[in-house]
Amino acid sequence: MAAAPLPRAPVTSSPSPAGRVLLLRGGPARGSIRTGAAAAPGWRRMLTPSPAVSAVALARSAGSPPGAAAVDPKVETLLDSVKWDTKGLAVAIAQNVDTGAILMQGFANKEALATTISTRKATFYSRSRSSLWTKGETSMNFINVYDIFLDCDRDSIIYLGKPDGPTCHTGAETCYFSSVYDALQGSKPNQDRQVVTTLYSLEDTINRRKEETVTEGSGKPSWTKKLLLDNQLLCSKIREEAGELIQTLLENEDKARAASEMADLLYHAMVLLSVKDVKMEEVLEVLRKRFSQSGIEEKASRKKS
Amino acid sequence: MAAAPLPRAPVTSSPSPAGRVLLLRGGPARGSIRTGAAAAPGWRRMLTPSPAVSAVALARSAGSPPGAAAVDPKVETLLDSVKWDTKGLAVAIAQNVDTGAILMQGFANKEALATTISTRKATFYSRSRSSLWTKGETSMNFINVYDIFLDCDRDSIIYLGKPDGPTCHTGAETCYFSSVYDALQGSKPNQDRQVVTTLYSLEDTINRRKEETVTEGSGKPSWTKKLLLDNQLLCSKIREEAGELIQTLLENEDKARAASEMADLLYHAMVLLSVKDVKMEEVLEVLRKRFSQSGIEEKASRKKS
Repeated sequence: MAAAPLPRAPVTSSPSPAGRVLLLRGGPARGSIRTGAAAAPGWRRMLTPSPAVSAVALARSAGSPPGAAAVDPKVETLLDSVKWDTKGLAVAIAQNVDTGAILMQGFANKEALATTISTRKATFYSRSRSSLWTKGETSMNFINVYDIFLDCDRDSIIYLGKPDGPTCHTGAETCYFSSVYDALQGSKPNQDRQVVTTLYSLEDTINRRKEETVTEGSGKPSWTKKLLLDNQLLCSKIREEAGELIQTLLENEDKARAASEMADLLYHAMVLLSVKDVKMEEVLEVLRKRFSQSGIEEKASRKKS
Repeated sequence: MAAAPLPRAPVTSSPSPAGRVLLLRGGPARGSIRTGAAAAPGWRRMLTPSPAVSAVALARSAGSPPGAAAVDPKVETLLDSVKWDTKGLAVAIAQNVDTGAILMQGFANKEALATTISTRKATFYSRSRSSLWTKGETSMNFINVYDIFLDCDRDSIIYLGKPDGPTCHTGAETCYFSSVYDALQGSKPNQDRQVVTTLYSLEDTINRRKEETVTEGSGKPSWTKKLLLDNQLLCSKIREEAGELIQTLLENEDKARAASEMADLLYHAMVLLSVKDVKMEEVLEVLRKRFSQSGIEEKASRKKS
């Protein structure tokens, strides 16, 4: 039912406007919401700068040139803990928090990372222009950062965020649309053939079948097309698959069976989403937004809306 | 129902043993399975080397030192099209094909990319050891590559693959378990707090609630715990949520409602998976394996097993 509260799962929270950060995130303790009130005062100070000292200005002082404004010592320590290469750079990868798509890869210097930490907009260092640049400063397609991860060697960074629009300068969702194996078969790079993981590959396939039902009529037979063209069949299948998933629990069927029935249910439900023109990314966004609230708050907000 | 054929969706196929590659992948044409038979003979030759010339040996000749074995000219052209930096390197990112998790990031030179293309095992160039290394050559935790993507600038590479086991030398699933914001709040890096996207963040939360039902008894109230402890309630909720998703189609409810109902169904179904100890990754693996077969083949293989 729509009013059932979803769990309190604050692993990622909505990024707040530049410089204002709610620390509603799950940490190692996993299980309690830690609010900004629990954070060290200095950290809060850096994240909520006074109007006179913007977050970017603070960030730009991260390299600590003489006369620059002071930076939170915790941030400074963190920036110093990164293993910057001989040019002062580390690889920075931007990833879509909902879909997992790798959007782009650039490099960050200390200042770029400091800026991203404070503004929550993915920021890089352009090696060709020798300057800082925030993705979206021209296109307005910012990448709103929810979390930042360093790897075990502390020389590689992930900006986990939500893009405001296509990330690639070509207008593609991601910069990765040239498949090596396609190229070796003689195909030209195709922006419709993005790097996609299993769930989105399935979604693409369902959507292609949907296009085919329009462009080719019945055409080549396909189970997906049949479902797309027959709402009653689709609905009865979703009901049936839900029943078979439930059965794996009630009749103590094995794990492989449960995985298989969940795959069936997910696929059929995704066909319905395609009919409704809803993307899995939108579903995941709903789930993410519910994470940052307790079930009670979530229920209350639904009543209001 | 279990026997319903899933769609013919060969966007990614199972990687075959080193040097033997089935080209069952969706390309720009999207909609037909292109088999190895359609590939250029030279490409096939490179992918199915004779026992006397191993794939790795072929790959190692990619730099074309004098006297080295000849490499498929298409591969050579592709390797030359990459914008290698002044040290002959490009960034190479390994991503889990099913979950989208960024597993690790290293660098590739021409030889490393050639080796990955031919062996389908993610291979990098170690800058510290000045040598080629295939992830897993010591740990046996290879990353089996399904596809390789170059970015729009052709200077960044994604190895999209399935890891045989944990990727990080620390034993963690991925190398990214140090959250910058956690660190700024004073937390130590925690391998349990990996970089995760929305779906896996929800899965983690459900699994934490499951642990709490054991360690804390009823403890703090939570809807997820209630579901985890009451199979009848859980099953009736899944049935109800499936019904509400269906209703969005039959009663022509809006897109936001469909996304919300799908979120509800997905969450409740994932609680069932948690009870059954099944990971979403296993479900996605099922879907991926079904992609590479037509519905008819898939149905036939189920009858056999």
